[in-house]
Order: sequence, then structure tokens, then C-alpha cells
Amino acid sequence: MAETPATFPEVQGGGSLIIAWQVKGKHVLVVGGGEVAAGRILHCLNADANVTVVSPAARLNPEVAYRVAQKQVSHVNRNFIPSDLDGADMVLVAVDDPAASTVIWKLCKERRIPANIADVPPECDFYFGSVHRDGPLQIMVSTNGKGPRLASIIRKFIAKLLPSNAGRAIDTVGQLRVKLREIAPRPEEGPKRMAWMTKVSDAYPWDEMCDLTEEDIGNLLRFYPAGTVPPLDDLKAMRANASVGNDAFDGSFGFSVGA
Amino acid sequence: MAETPATFPEVQGGGSLIIAWQVKGKHVLVVGGGEVAAGRILHCLNADANVTVVSPAARLNPEVAYRVAQKQVSHVNRNFIPSDLDGADMVLVAVDDPAASTVIWKLCKERRIPANIADVPPECDFYFGSVHRDGPLQIMVSTNGKGPRLASIIRKFIAKLLPSNAGRAIDTVGQLRVKLREIAPRPEEGPKRMAWMTKVSDAYPWDEMCDLTEEDIGNLLRFYPAGTVPPLDDLKAMRANASVGNDAFDGSFGFSVGA
Repeated sequence: MAETPATFPEVQGGGSLIIAWQVKGKHVLVVGGGEVAAGRILHCLNADANVTVVSPAARLNPEVAYRVAQKQVSHVNRNFIPSDLDGADMVLVAVDDPAASTVIWKLCKERRIPANIADVPPECDFYFGSVHRDGPLQIMVSTNGKGPRLASIIRKFIAKLLPSNAGRAIDTVGQLRVKLREIAPRPEEGPKRMAWMTKVSDAYPWDEMCDLTEEDIGNLLRFYPAGTVPPLDDLKAMRANASVGNDAFDGSFGFSVGA
Repeated sequence: MAETPATFPEVQGGGSLIIAWQVKGKHVLVVGGGEVAAGRILHCLNADANVTVVSPAARLNPEVAYRVAQKQVSHVNRNFIPSDLDGADMVLVAVDDPAASTVIWKLCKERRIPANIADVPPECDFYFGSVHRDGPLQIMVSTNGKGPRLASIIRKFIAKLLPSNAGRAIDTVGQLRVKLREIAPRPEEGPKRMAWMTKVSDAYPWDEMCDLTEEDIGNLLRFYPAGTVPPLDDLKAMRANASVGNDAFDGSFGFSVGA
């Protein structure tokens, strides 16, 4: 008898598998140099890819031409030829030529190179969405092809609601994790490290983590051996310059007057 | 002379290329049947993949065993062997055996199959993030490995702030686009269609689009030929049962009294 355990999430088909592709140091070939290509190129550069753009120079839009001039991307000044695929780890096509696009798509499939042909969903291993970026934080909104414009509207809606320096909160947590490993490096301490990190996440609202300084991180780590986490206010009160009657006032306040 | 045009977005390295991978009908091989595998499997099923799980039955966690019993996934009741990769379009490995994982990763790379080895970043073509799902809407939060737990916290933070039926707004817009193409199918009308859809997006707050009924969509389409978009309240006032002095009152109101 099949059970229907309410605890297992139900499958909701019709979505995509949204993933964070690692293109750092990989070769991404962009065929075309128009507006769509410009957007793709920026996405790839933000992910540290080595980008090569194949397009006659006369057809580069100003942004792509700028990235070429700045040597942010390599440029091959002509139309696509099949050997351009040699060494490519990913191919993005954005040209107004469906027949040529299909040829490139087929070549990519023969060579098993992941590819996206703009505006031709059946010739895409993957789609793009609208991405919000704030340091290490990336939020991608996909409407699964139902409304690209809406995806961008929703992305902006989310960006407005996030704390202004959400990315910093993540950096802080990342820093805490790295330093924790420095002071408690032994593998067998893994579970204790993980349990304490969880305790920190539970104790501090994530959007308030943005305010933690390097000094706070250092102070917080002093609680790790005991496996405790102080209230956030107590932690801030531990700052060297936190005491009201601080005699060691260095006069630096004077410099900021009128600044 | 290199210009520095303020209009071109600056490159912010260090991110990932976040993409919506299309696995509908594709073969995804999941090696391992534990908790991590369970999460991966759900992601894949939500994207309509054909999933095969390779793992001794004794090591399946309850959720994976449930999906096997429900025939949501195929199951190969043994440890991985290389021929399991035949026909695989993507491979996800989640086993507590680094040496075996590395062997599978290398085989995948020889065969150019995209792969993710859980918890081994250098052996990953892509990472997973935390995904919010509401019908056609998918929002993925990635901290680029800095804080997986934070990713999930931020995802929940966003989910709480979104209108409760955000997915429906997207369905509505998708429906509008499909019907618009039905009444104005000619390719040469593409720019007019696109301009009008943009006008709709600009005129109606996206979170209020959730409330539009099929009747509203029909009424809205009547404005397309003139290229106009009525105020949202006017559109709602066009509903057949919207007029206050409606003589055709069918008494149904009586049923809701005391309901």
C-alpha cells in the first residue's frame, strides 16, 4: 500500500532546474554583438568567464564595442565559423538569423557544448532570467518564459525590499565561517562548528548581520569554545569604543565635523 | 581614447552564471539516495526531468524510497557502475565517498556530461541554491557558497514579502500574451503587440494582476486594436456582474448571507 506522507513535498512540474553555473576561467563563446549579446556578456563577466565575441565589428552595439575596447572580452571580427567552437565550454548565440542559429545549435549538440540560442526556446539547454546582484548575493527571477518583462519587474520589487546591504551580511557570515575554521581547524570539530554557526544564524536576524564589524566577528568567536552566542546588543557593547565614558577618545570625531 | 561611459554597467566579478536549465524529458542520473539526493530529486522532478536513482535500496532515505514506490523516479538497486552514465544528460552525485565521487566526476568530464558532486565545489559544473516556487514563478537565491543557510533564510524572507498569489499574476500575463497572439497573429504586428504588452505592464501594478479574471483578460483585449489600456478600475467595472443596479440579480447573494 502506498502511503501519502504529508511530510514529503509534492512535485510541482513545469519549472526549470535553476542552477548557478560555474564559468570562472571557462571559455564562453558569444555569437553576435547586439543588445541581447551585451546582456549575456555582462552576465558572463560577472561570473569571471573568459568571453570571446564573434561578430563583424560594424555590428557591435556601443556596450559590446566598449567591452572589446576595454579588453574585457576577446573579439573575432567576422561572422561565425565552426572552428570557433574549438575549446568553447559554453555558447550563447544572439543573432537575427534563425537558419544560422540552428546550424550553430546543431554543432553545439554534436560536440555536447551547453548552448543558448536567444529567442529560440527549443534550441536552448538553458534560459536566462532577471538577476539581482549584491556582492556574493545573487537572486534570479524566472517566469519560465511566461513574462520576461514581469521577471524584471519582480526582480526590482525584491531588490527594493531587501536590506540595503544584504550582500555585506553574507560576507560577514562567510568571514565568520572562515575565521572559525582558522581557530578550530580540526575535521572532527566539524559538527560543533556547524552547530554553532546555526546557533548564530538563529540568534541574529540576518538583515542585522550587515552591521557587524571585524571587531564584532572577533568578539563573537570568543564564544565558540563554550558553544554559546551572546545577544546581538551584548556583542555590540563589547566594542572597544562602545563605552560611553571612553577616556581614549582620539579626537577623530573632530575631523568628521563639516565633512 | 577609451571612454568611461557611465551608462554601461560595471563588471562585478565573483558571481555565478545563474541559469534555468531545461531538463524536461532529459535523463538525470542521481547517484546516492540520502537527504541531499532527496532535495536534488525534487528539484529535478519539479523541472519535469526523467530521474534515475542509483543506490542500494537499504540506503534510500524515506523521501527517496517514497518517490521510488510512487514511480516518480526509476531506481537501480546497487552501487554506481560506469555504464550508468550511458544516456545521462546530467549527473548529480550525493554519496559520502569522496574517492568514488571523484571517479564519477572524471567519467562525466570525459563524456562531457554536466555534473554536480555535492559538497565538492571543485567537482561541480554548477551549484544549487535555495529556490522559491509559485507556479510559473521561480526565484533562486545564491550566496555563491558563502552561506547556504543564509540563502534559505533570504529565500523565506522574499517569499513572505511577495504577494500571496504572485504566480497567478504571471499566469495571467502569459494568458494575455497567448490570447493576444490569437487575435493578432500576423508576424508584422509583432512590434505593436510588444508595445501594447509593455503598456499593460506599465499601467497595472504587477501584484494586482493576480486578481484579473478570464473575463477581464477578454475585456482588456478589446482595447488592443486602438493600442490603449484602460485604468484597472475601469476594466474591473466592465465585468458583467459589476454594475450596481444590475436587474439580472439572480438571488445568489442570498446564499452567501450567513455563509
